[in-house]
Amino acid sequence: MIYVEPMVKEEKEKKGITVNKEKDFSAWYTEVIEKSEFVDYTSVSGALAFRPDAYFAWETVQRATDDIFKASGIQNVYFPTLIPEHLLSKEKEHVKGFNPEVAWVTQTGDSKLEERLAVRPTSETIMYESFSKWIKSWRDLPMRLNQWNSVLRWEFKHPTPLLRSREFLWNEGHTVFGSQEEADKERDEILGIYLKILKEYLALPGIAGRKSDSEKFAGAVATYSIEHMLPNGWSIQGPDFHSDGQNFAKAFDIKFINQKGEKEYAYQNTFAISTRELGIMMAVHGDNRGAVLPPRIARIQVVVIPIFTTENKPQVMKAASDISQTIGKHARTYLDDNDVYSPGWKFNNWELKGTPIRVEIGERDIKAGKVVLARRDTSEKHEVRIEELEKKITAMLGEINANLLSKAEKLLKESIHEVKSYEELKKTIKQKGGFVEAGWCGSAECEAKVKDETGAKITNMPFDVQSKAKNAKCVVCGEEAKYVANFARSY
Amino acid sequence: MIYVEPMVKEEKEKKGITVNKEKDFSAWYTEVIEKSEFVDYTSVSGALAFRPDAYFAWETVQRATDDIFKASGIQNVYFPTLIPEHLLSKEKEHVKGFNPEVAWVTQTGDSKLEERLAVRPTSETIMYESFSKWIKSWRDLPMRLNQWNSVLRWEFKHPTPLLRSREFLWNEGHTVFGSQEEADKERDEILGIYLKILKEYLALPGIAGRKSDSEKFAGAVATYSIEHMLPNGWSIQGPDFHSDGQNFAKAFDIKFINQKGEKEYAYQNTFAISTRELGIMMAVHGDNRGAVLPPRIARIQVVVIPIFTTENKPQVMKAASDISQTIGKHARTYLDDNDVYSPGWKFNNWELKGTPIRVEIGERDIKAGKVVLARRDTSEKHEVRIEELEKKITAMLGEINANLLSKAEKLLKESIHEVKSYEELKKTIKQKGGFVEAGWCGSAECEAKVKDETGAKITNMPFDVQSKAKNAKCVVCGEEAKYVANFARSY
Repeated sequence: MIYVEPMVKEEKEKKGITVNKEKDFSAWYTEVIEKSEFVDYTSVSGALAFRPDAYFAWETVQRATDDIFKASGIQNVYFPTLIPEHLLSKEKEHVKGFNPEVAWVTQTGDSKLEERLAVRPTSETIMYESFSKWIKSWRDLPMRLNQWNSVLRWEFKHPTPLLRSREFLWNEGHTVFGSQEEADKERDEILGIYLKILKEYLALPGIAGRKSDSEKFAGAVATYSIEHMLPNGWSIQGPDFHSDGQNFAKAFDIKFINQKGEKEYAYQNTFAISTRELGIMMAVHGDNRGAVLPPRIARIQVVVIPIFTTENKPQVMKAASDISQTIGKHARTYLDDNDVYSPGWKFNNWELKGTPIRVEIGERDIKAGKVVLARRDTSEKHEVRIEELEKKITAMLGEINANLLSKAEKLLKESIHEVKSYEELKKTIKQKGGFVEAGWCGSAECEAKVKDETGAKITNMPFDVQSKAKNAKCVVCGEEAKYVANFARSY
Repeated sequence: MIYVEPMVKEEKEKKGITVNKEKDFSAWYTEVIEKSEFVDYTSVSGALAFRPDAYFAWETVQRATDDIFKASGIQNVYFPTLIPEHLLSKEKEHVKGFNPEVAWVTQTGDSKLEERLAVRPTSETIMYESFSKWIKSWRDLPMRLNQWNSVLRWEFKHPTPLLRSREFLWNEGHTVFGSQEEADKERDEILGIYLKILKEYLALPGIAGRKSDSEKFAGAVATYSIEHMLPNGWSIQGPDFHSDGQNFAKAFDIKFINQKGEKEYAYQNTFAISTRELGIMMAVHGDNRGAVLPPRIARIQVVVIPIFTTENKPQVMKAASDISQTIGKHARTYLDDNDVYSPGWKFNNWELKGTPIRVEIGERDIKAGKVVLARRDTSEKHEVRIEELEKKITAMLGEINANLLSKAEKLLKESIHEVKSYEELKKTIKQKGGFVEAGWCGSAECEAKVKDETGAKITNMPFDVQSKAKNAKCVVCGEEAKYVANFARSY
């Protein structure tokens, strides 16, 4: 498919990235997401405009995830944006967790409402009131529902576009089972789906594990998460899965008649992936020339740039157009036929936007029956014969995805530091950042001490290292370790 | 694909439709959308829960529309849910039109906001502030953006689920052009896309035309609409297209440097299709046994119901399962293997839900190498040999869609009454309802007189009958007619 010119360009004053990612990650990140025309600020502080490249990336993640959800038997639904205050307040831990961040509707038109309505920060409460009506018998279970929507959390700490926004887009899966055992089985399935999507679409790895009790979701029995590492050594939580046990079922009276004919409270889970992942993707893959988009989520995968003079313009444009048609059969392709900007300006512009492959074609190339392919991720240039172009483009898109993922996996692996003493933990947090892996006795006191003294919290207790807990001691108090936990400074 | 049991069933007390559609359309409609488990009420008055069947239908319409939009060069974006009051107020007609229906956020957490934030009733104002930054030159145009989201309009007149809800889902297309002429060309393209989607996916016809000035969108120069007819003789507006001229461009300072090097205000359009169409679809196709879903938007297209006794259950279930697998290759198929409810109960239940085809299979059928297919739309039963089943199912789904559309087209056609005098107009509105087609001079006074005296307003001026205006007189004042208009009582 060939794209019609879709970009909005600032005039000549447009500038590239001015900050070095290694020297000042935060300033670099803020520049790259805006200058690449990925997102833009609006006059609502903390809420963004998702421009076409960002929304395309999200849509792609959404469709891919949704297809797997559907094949697994999960059905989509949609519940209202506004939640009456009395509903939001039904589960005590839940309301305590969300109240400080709620945006309240108190008036409609000129009328004052009798009861405040919350713009949903999450939808448990409005959904579970309906679940309580819909679920009667064990035959109605499992009921696995999901919705894709936006939520508002008017928080004030660390506002960072995409990574910590006041409005974001996500899925919220809400499932109900007839036993805790069945509910628990869903956890590995869902986390597996999220890990696969992150890897294949965003070229992002993550560490799956259980959150500590002090970091779990408001109202849940246990929370499981996938944690990412950012280039500045700070971690950030990705998709999560909450095991709610019977907590919400009791608050919302979700009962079913079990196979013995007795009434029993149902067992619930919730899970989510959000547009925060787009920020993580930009942060992990981008470089000092701009964004680097993984091919699967790139709205434009290949940009064709004709290099012409006034004299040879017709021939070069014709050849560039033919080549765009050919590549367009295999990749989302855009022919940049603008004749005001120089090829050099265009190269910079598309590098800034993160387009995976640039095709350069000029008069000499045409005569030699070849074009030049430039890879955004490695900056390598390859001369390719036109008859090999189709095969080469498809292969190169795959290679770029694999390369981005393998670089991100290396970054993640290198960010994990195993420590044996509290001194070592403190020093590592301070000097290196990253995930500091250590034994933990499971006590909230030891966890709080680390947080107070280092600013690092427990991101999660990774599934794949728990076997090490057997022979370990708590890095804080020296007692027997119950878990191996990752400590990190986090967004 | 075979569905895992996804339904939520009320226990035995579940009842069918108790109201006759012909006798009391409103009561019938309210019953059918709820009892078919399509949507449900929530504790937010005027806002619904879209259950799996409704959301699947919407997703299908959305994806089909979106695919055509994308092929046409329209890009998706996402803008914030909340709009600051000063922005909403920038275009005078716009704010006047929407202010009475706005839900206002005035507090976040425990803090009072300095400026009220509107939960978007539509997104012109928040989007156009960004457009003004993004558009600089004629090279940035056309810019054709779109978003799929939810909007809130807290209105109080005629609240009817789906048809007139306080929250609904829609697309909002927002496009910007360098000339009025170019902008105008988009109208027929977009209305054509909507007509095609309505026909192919929802089996709904509609009448395309221009709205009168008093019925146009707040802030637009002209509004065009597709109007539907409901079985009770009341019309309802479907998708619309607004030609905004330079109105919003002037209010939001959206200027571009044209090819002569001069600054010029841009030309804009907006357009939308909403979940209201799901209500229209339910209203038009449903009958006294429940919903009748057009096959393309039916989440489950074929339900297989095994008819067994305790003795022959294993054999019958095996055959039913095999057949479900076979049909599942061609249609979204569900095997209802519940063994508590009788086949008769199941027949009623799936008819209530509107599933297009029911397959019945019992021991005698298996021995005879055949099954029974029951069509939801016509109630016809067909015996089909198992080896012909695949071909027959595919053909039947097509026939059902065609039949529903042709019935709806007949209803629409029969609802149009051409009148020559004001007396005839009044009598027709009162006795028959429907669209009353008559000459109109174009004056707001004549339009208002009809509305005051009959309750009917001008739904639109259909494109395809305007040639008749030449020889016609205004049905109210008797002056030369400028237009042929449809008058109807409307939701």
